[in-house]
Amino acid sequence: MAVYTHVPAEDIDVFLARYDAGRLVSAKGIAEGVENSNYLLETTGSSDNDEGQRFILTLYEKRVDEEDLPFFMDLLDHLGARGCRVPRFIADREGRRLQHLAGRPACLIEFLTGISVTEPTAAQAHAAGMALGELHKAAQGFAQQRPNRLDKAGWHALAARCGSDLDQIEPGLAGRVRDELAWLDAHWPSDLPQSVIHADLFPDNVLMLGDHVTGLIDFYFSCTDIRAYDLAVTHSAWCFSNDGASWFGDRAAALGNGYSEAHGLTQAERDAFPTLCRGAALRFLLTRAYDWINTPADALVTRKDPTAYLRRLDFYTHADAAELLGA
Amino acid sequence: MAVYTHVPAEDIDVFLARYDAGRLVSAKGIAEGVENSNYLLETTGSSDNDEGQRFILTLYEKRVDEEDLPFFMDLLDHLGARGCRVPRFIADREGRRLQHLAGRPACLIEFLTGISVTEPTAAQAHAAGMALGELHKAAQGFAQQRPNRLDKAGWHALAARCGSDLDQIEPGLAGRVRDELAWLDAHWPSDLPQSVIHADLFPDNVLMLGDHVTGLIDFYFSCTDIRAYDLAVTHSAWCFSNDGASWFGDRAAALGNGYSEAHGLTQAERDAFPTLCRGAALRFLLTRAYDWINTPADALVTRKDPTAYLRRLDFYTHADAAELLGA
Repeated sequence: MAVYTHVPAEDIDVFLARYDAGRLVSAKGIAEGVENSNYLLETTGSSDNDEGQRFILTLYEKRVDEEDLPFFMDLLDHLGARGCRVPRFIADREGRRLQHLAGRPACLIEFLTGISVTEPTAAQAHAAGMALGELHKAAQGFAQQRPNRLDKAGWHALAARCGSDLDQIEPGLAGRVRDELAWLDAHWPSDLPQSVIHADLFPDNVLMLGDHVTGLIDFYFSCTDIRAYDLAVTHSAWCFSNDGASWFGDRAAALGNGYSEAHGLTQAERDAFPTLCRGAALRFLLTRAYDWINTPADALVTRKDPTAYLRRLDFYTHADAAELLGA
Repeated sequence: MAVYTHVPAEDIDVFLARYDAGRLVSAKGIAEGVENSNYLLETTGSSDNDEGQRFILTLYEKRVDEEDLPFFMDLLDHLGARGCRVPRFIADREGRRLQHLAGRPACLIEFLTGISVTEPTAAQAHAAGMALGELHKAAQGFAQQRPNRLDKAGWHALAARCGSDLDQIEPGLAGRVRDELAWLDAHWPSDLPQSVIHADLFPDNVLMLGDHVTGLIDFYFSCTDIRAYDLAVTHSAWCFSNDGASWFGDRAAALGNGYSEAHGLTQAERDAFPTLCRGAALRFLLTRAYDWINTPADALVTRKDPTAYLRRLDFYTHADAAELLGA
């Protein structure tokens, strides 16, 4: 996490003049999110608010496709209008939300307070489950679709690109991945409800104050896919120790209960949940493995350990829905 | 510039409880300053200020020696008490300013608004010159001393460590540096007034709103040395294009006038100014050259071009005081 594109403060000030956002009084490059460059801005405030306001300025680097930005913008508008605490993209005086700055697509985005927890409590997992359920409710009626590039076909492609290098991460991993993909091909559910999903709701992407969610952020993986798969991704991110060695049943039960209270799971979704979790674990195992193989060990970016998701996959392979959802 | 040490938000919240600073509501890792890890914090505010406050949390990595921190803290207290806009180190409820967090020395520091300009105008250079003069005035009476590790003896040591690798940067550079060191040994002034100096007052380290200075930051090179050398360092940083190819006489005159209005230069300081500027240019040439030689080309940290300071050295070698100070 770093700031990839340096933008002179003078240029940010000129950029801001397109908006009713006041004059720039502070600009700090922040280390946050996927591979974008982000600045936390403070301004003198808009014409109807002279208190000083904060914004996030995001410049999109290689990982986000400019053509996808309207989908993310419209989605957050839709969700925000239905009461979800998500950061809105700010329109300039002419109504434009997508700009260019320093040769990159750039957007001014609402700043939300809140901190990301590292070791969630059960109460915090409950709040995250509720927030995800509310997101899925609010997403109903959002007409746009975006394919999930990291769906099962995407996992096959990633595994093929990693090839036998997987065995450098852990002996036998290439075979294990091959077998798991075959199992998922045979068992992946085809008839569960789909919706727009966040697809990356790690604790990093949930802003909280105490046990309350103040913001869901970083929607740049959001896409159309099996709705309950979003809960499986969240489950894999919130219910284990970082290294995957410890499983926290209390958090899992709280997450499942929170989601059920806000949205609910059908019996078919519940039955398929262990399979969806196996898929979620394999998805992060493969993206981490790909980055591991393709990032020099001495690079300044921290490589995330793929085997932390292999441990989760092991766990999910032997768990049933009642255990995973605490029901 | 990156965040080297990740501190869980929960740990920052616990850390903050030592202070009368309120509860944490936001924490963003910021890419700023020398090789420290910095977080921009927002809190609910101290007991006599329920408006919400911002702070900088700094964790000191390898480049700053913990034993030097009391000097920097006392200096900023001294300067702040005399009206300089510098960030104060915050004391906890027991009066301690130096803490430890995540295994590193850590301090909570006042947040100052303002932005760092990239292309200073003459008016901004004038304001920077005034701020430096006021800093030198306020520094009078500060009793503590800290040797400058990057003084002329330090340049000799750096040049020796770079050795013939300098010629990889530009053919002939090793000989040029050797000759320049010999010239400076013969001409470096020994009787100019000394004081505590900032020693690194690049535009990065000056926060401004419009043409007004709102903060001088990053005092981690501050030390005891020739006072007018501080103006020479500032001159080398503010009066050229980044690559050193263009010289801006209007900025230089404004910087010199601003300094003279706030503090003044003696005739001896003025006479020695070209020599001091040659020393300043060599200092940054050598530290950049050392980093260039010792940083892999594909590292994520941006190496700063040493030859940008060789161009400045060329310029200073043929300039006289009247030209440099616009008088």
